[in-house]
Amino acid sequence: MQNTILGTTFVCQIAIVVRDAEKATRRLAELLGVPVPAVNTANADGSDTVTYLGQPTPGRVKLSFFDLENTVLEFIEPTDDPTTWKAFLETNGPGVHHIAFKAKDRMMETAAKLEAFGFPLIQNGDKYAYVDSTADLGVILELLDID
Amino acid sequence: MQNTILGTTFVCQIAIVVRDAEKATRRLAELLGVPVPAVNTANADGSDTVTYLGQPTPGRVKLSFFDLENTVLEFIEPTDDPTTWKAFLETNGPGVHHIAFKAKDRMMETAAKLEAFGFPLIQNGDKYAYVDSTADLGVILELLDID
Repeated sequence: MQNTILGTTFVCQIAIVVRDAEKATRRLAELLGVPVPAVNTANADGSDTVTYLGQPTPGRVKLSFFDLENTVLEFIEPTDDPTTWKAFLETNGPGVHHIAFKAKDRMMETAAKLEAFGFPLIQNGDKYAYVDSTADLGVILELLDID
Repeated sequence: MQNTILGTTFVCQIAIVVRDAEKATRRLAELLGVPVPAVNTANADGSDTVTYLGQPTPGRVKLSFFDLENTVLEFIEPTDDPTTWKAFLETNGPGVHHIAFKAKDRMMETAAKLEAFGFPLIQNGDKYAYVDSTADLGVILELLDID
């Protein structure tokens, strides 16, 4: 798959926007019989440079993560900051916001290829980028600049 | 995980409802650089007994499947038959309808446990069952009676 645009077919995260991340996290932990993971606010310190639809945004968001056997499930509770997560919740209600793929050291280069493919960049931070593939694929794709 | 309600944390399918399964299938194949998988109509012969919200339905649906590295991605195009897929598309628009877990030889037993947990049965065929976990988890869960 290394010569393809995406370069991988490993879905490293499935991310779900919810209204109440604490509740979702508690209920899934109960269902799976695992300790309740922490819900933390990402970019609370403003250290990440976040751009949404070409404009800067604080881009803060509440997140929790579950390590499942073959992937990671993530809950996302938007803050009032303008973001793709907030827009998704307002438009669609709770639901799967994106599936994620690793693109270490080639994130924005891959995002540019996806834009040429017809999936424009929606939002990015230093280590993540979302492209809008919803019209064709029914879901947003995320690229992660991580190993 | 064998003593938990779900009995597994392996996400064996991520299923996306779209308006045009042929187009979604063609575009994802192009993105991944793989042959375009077939889009087939499930239960075209009516051999599966499908129940939706307590009522019988033909439950036909157009499906395609991609074998990714760590899971299967499925596209779903509803027919006019009353189903959870059609209701999802009408309510939410295109999006991830469910994530699936295997429950071989214990599908309806597991569905009953999930109902007691607060996730009621929405629809089932002979080999699949959906429970409505959307209010808590933001996504429907599917149980599959397969290996």
